[in-house]
Amino acid sequence: MPNEKTTQALAALDSARADTEASLLEWLRIPSVSAQPAHAPDCRAAAEWLSRELVALGFQARLRDTPGHPVVIATHPGPGGDVPHVLIYGHYDVQPPEPLELWKSPPFAPVVTDGPRGPRIVARGAVDDKGQVMTWLAALRAWNTAAGAPPVRVTVLVEGEEEVGSPNLDAVLEAEKATLAADVALISDTNMWDPQTPALTISLRGMVYVQIDLKLGDRDLHSGLFGGSAGNVLNLLTRILGDLKDADGRIQIPGFYDGVAEPGAEQRAAWEALGFDEAAFLGAQGLSVPGGEKGRSAPERLWARPTADVNGVWGGYMGEGSKTVIACEGHAKLSCRLVPGQDPEKIVEGIRAFVKARLPADARFELQVFGTAPAVSVPLDSPWLKAAEVVLQEEFGKPAVRAGGGGSIPVASSLKGILGLDSLLMGFGLDDDQVHSPNEKFELSCLHAGARSHVRLLGKLAK
Amino acid sequence: MPNEKTTQALAALDSARADTEASLLEWLRIPSVSAQPAHAPDCRAAAEWLSRELVALGFQARLRDTPGHPVVIATHPGPGGDVPHVLIYGHYDVQPPEPLELWKSPPFAPVVTDGPRGPRIVARGAVDDKGQVMTWLAALRAWNTAAGAPPVRVTVLVEGEEEVGSPNLDAVLEAEKATLAADVALISDTNMWDPQTPALTISLRGMVYVQIDLKLGDRDLHSGLFGGSAGNVLNLLTRILGDLKDADGRIQIPGFYDGVAEPGAEQRAAWEALGFDEAAFLGAQGLSVPGGEKGRSAPERLWARPTADVNGVWGGYMGEGSKTVIACEGHAKLSCRLVPGQDPEKIVEGIRAFVKARLPADARFELQVFGTAPAVSVPLDSPWLKAAEVVLQEEFGKPAVRAGGGGSIPVASSLKGILGLDSLLMGFGLDDDQVHSPNEKFELSCLHAGARSHVRLLGKLAK
Repeated sequence: MPNEKTTQALAALDSARADTEASLLEWLRIPSVSAQPAHAPDCRAAAEWLSRELVALGFQARLRDTPGHPVVIATHPGPGGDVPHVLIYGHYDVQPPEPLELWKSPPFAPVVTDGPRGPRIVARGAVDDKGQVMTWLAALRAWNTAAGAPPVRVTVLVEGEEEVGSPNLDAVLEAEKATLAADVALISDTNMWDPQTPALTISLRGMVYVQIDLKLGDRDLHSGLFGGSAGNVLNLLTRILGDLKDADGRIQIPGFYDGVAEPGAEQRAAWEALGFDEAAFLGAQGLSVPGGEKGRSAPERLWARPTADVNGVWGGYMGEGSKTVIACEGHAKLSCRLVPGQDPEKIVEGIRAFVKARLPADARFELQVFGTAPAVSVPLDSPWLKAAEVVLQEEFGKPAVRAGGGGSIPVASSLKGILGLDSLLMGFGLDDDQVHSPNEKFELSCLHAGARSHVRLLGKLAK
Repeated sequence: MPNEKTTQALAALDSARADTEASLLEWLRIPSVSAQPAHAPDCRAAAEWLSRELVALGFQARLRDTPGHPVVIATHPGPGGDVPHVLIYGHYDVQPPEPLELWKSPPFAPVVTDGPRGPRIVARGAVDDKGQVMTWLAALRAWNTAAGAPPVRVTVLVEGEEEVGSPNLDAVLEAEKATLAADVALISDTNMWDPQTPALTISLRGMVYVQIDLKLGDRDLHSGLFGGSAGNVLNLLTRILGDLKDADGRIQIPGFYDGVAEPGAEQRAAWEALGFDEAAFLGAQGLSVPGGEKGRSAPERLWARPTADVNGVWGGYMGEGSKTVIACEGHAKLSCRLVPGQDPEKIVEGIRAFVKARLPADARFELQVFGTAPAVSVPLDSPWLKAAEVVLQEEFGKPAVRAGGGGSIPVASSLKGILGLDSLLMGFGLDDDQVHSPNEKFELSCLHAGARSHVRLLGKLAK
C-alpha cells in the first residue's frame, strides 16, 4: 500500500495531466537530432530546457560540455536522512526523422491524435526518449508539489548522444564518478509487455558491431577476360558471410559460445509460461519461418542467445541492367547481439580470425569496430526489482512480466562498469510505437501510467 | 605470296596512312554513346558518317532504323564472278566515358600521344570498336584505289547497340536474312596475343547474366528486438551465393556441367605450348592466387571452362557507421561464362532451382535475366581460318596464336544461329588498351598492321 505522501503525489500528478502533456509537446518541438550537425544548437536547447525544468524543482543542474553534445547533470539532496540515492538516466537527443515524406504529421510539430487505444502523441522522440524521460519529470514535479522534494536522493543524468552511440559518455562517467555515485540507476527505455501489462526487463543483450572491408586486386576487371583466373572478391565475401552459421543456425565464429550458459529448468519454465506467440510476432512482419538456432524457444532465442546478423552488404555493380565486372572490393556490416558470459573484445577477435582463415593470400582485409558492449543482467533478488514489482502490481492490478530484452542499452553496461551501478529497467513504450521509424508515437495512457508508476516507485524506495 | 593486286592494294594502303589516321580521328569525335539517350543523335551521325564513307567506295549503303539506334547495312558486288561473299561486322557505338575525371585527354577529343611502343590514339572508341572497324574501312579503300573494287563480294553490317547488349539486332538479322546472306562473317573485336604476335580467336565463351532479388518480411526490423527470431535476408542471400562453388572451385548449380566436354590431349598440349604466364597475368592486376577450378591450367580455365561470378551484391545499411537493422530485401547480379555444350536457357533454370532450393517458405524470389548467349566455336579445319593464318604469317613473320577468347561476343552466336554464318575472329587490340575504362587507346602500329592484314585477307580469299 502506498503511504500518504505517495497518495498525495499521485493526486498531484493526476491533476497535472494536461500540464504534463503540454510540457512534453513543448520539449518535442525542439529538433534535437544528434546525428545531424546542423541541429547541434537544438540539442543544446533541448538540454537547457530540461535543466530549467529541474532547477524549478529545486535541483542543482548544469550542462556538462563534451566534444559533442552536452550532458545534463542535476542533483537533489531529497528529504535528508538515510534514504536511497537513485540515478535517473535518459537522453534528450532523437533519431533523424527521415524519410520525411512518410510522416503523416511533421516530426517536430507534435500532434495528439486518436488511435485504437485512445489518444497518442505523434512526433520524433515522442517515446524515444523524451516521452519516457517525461514520465520521470512529471513524477518529480508531483513529489515537489506534494512534499516539496523527492522522497529519495536523486541524480538526473540525461545525455544528448545516445542515438549516435554515446561516444563521449564513458569519459563523462569516469570524470564525474563522485557526482554520479548512487545506489541504483533507473532507466526508462524499454517496453511494456502489452498495452495493459507492464514489464521489467531483467536482461539486455550486448553488442558487437563491425564492418568487414575486403580488397582483391588493384582494379575492377572484365569478367570475360579474367573470369576463371582472377579471384572475385564478391564470391569470397559472400562465401565468408554464408559460412557464419551452420544448417542448425549455430554461429561458427571461433569461441563464440564460450561462457554462454544454458538456461536452467526454472528459466525455461518461466519463458514457457509467457505464452509468447512467435507466429503472431513474425506474422505481423510478413514472416513465418523462425530464424536463430533450431530447437530453442522464441524467448530464449530473442533474449538469451547470441546472434550474428548481416546488417548491410555491398560491392560491384549495383545499377540498372548488366555490367560484366569482377569487382576489386566488397564490404559488409555485421553485428552480434551478446549474452552474459561473452566478452565483446574476444568476439571481435573471433570475427577477425573467422574472416582471416577464409582469405586467399592476395586478399586485403580490414575490420572496423563501430561499437562493443557486454550483456547486462539484472540480479533477480535485487531489492530494487522487488520494489518495482510491487508498485507495478499496484498500478496495473497484475504482475509485471519479467521480460528479457533483445536489444542493447550500452549505457547500462557503462553505468555498471564505470560507476558500479545496477540498472532497473522499467519502461512504458509499446512494440508498435515505431521507434526509429516515421510516425513515432507514445500513448497518453502509457505516459500517465508510467508517471504514476514512477511516483509510486520513488515513494516505495524511500521506505 | 600475295598476288600483284594485293601488293598494289598494300602500297595504296601504306600511302594513305595519314588519311587513315585522320579519318579515324574524325569518326572518334562523334560521341556515339549508345547507353545515354542524350547521345542518340550522335549515334545516328556516327552511322551516317560510315555510310557516306562506304558509298564513296561504290557500296550501296543505308541506315536501317530499329526501335533503338540504326544499323548500317552496305553491300558491294565485288569484281563479279565466282568469288566468296564476306560479311564484315562491327559497331559504331561506344561505352560511356565516365568517370570523366580520370581521362588525361577528353574522351571525344582524340589525341595521338607517344607510348612505350610508339604513337597511339587515345579516345573512347579508339579500339572498341571504331579503330577496329577502321582497319576494315582502310583495307576497302585500298582495294578501291588499287582495283576499283574489293576482290570479293562484301556486306558491311555495323550496328549501334553492341555496348548495350544489341537488343534489336536479332530482329534485324531475321528481317534481313536475304540481304545479309554470305559465306563467312569477319569480326575484328578481339586482341592480338602480344604487340608483335597476332592471334586468331577460335572460341568464345557464352554468357548468362541474371539478377537475384530476394525479399523476406514486409519491412526493415530492429536487430535487437527481432534478432534470433526473424529471418535475415542478407544472411540468406550470402549463404546462397557462398554455396555457388565448392572448395575446389566447382560450380554447384544443378546440371551446370552437362554437355561440357573435357579437352583432348592435343588441345591440352597446344595450351601448354603457349607458355601462358598466369603469375604475370594476375600480378599485373595485383593478384596472385588463381581463381577457378583447381587442377586445370590457366588457358583452360579462361577459355574452355565455365564460370560463375558475382558482379554485384547489395542490401541493408551501406552508409557511414552502424545501423542495427535486419533488412527486408537483398540483391545480387550473377553471370556465368559458358562453353560449348551448355544451353543458356538450362543454365538460367539451373540458377533458379539452385536459389529456390535454399529459400525458406516465407522468402520471395525473382530472377531477372539480362542476357543469354551460347558459346561459339570456330571450326579448326575452316578454309577461312587457314587463309587467315597464311596472311598473318605473311604480315607478321610468325604464326598467329590460336587463342581461346574468355569473353563473349553474342553477335557471333546470333550470326550463326540466324544467318548460319561462322565467324572469323581476327582482331588487333591489345590487352592493355583499357577498353571500357578511361584513357582507352589503340596503337597506330596495330591500326596499320590490322588494315594491312585485312588487305591481304581479302586478296587471299578471292583466290
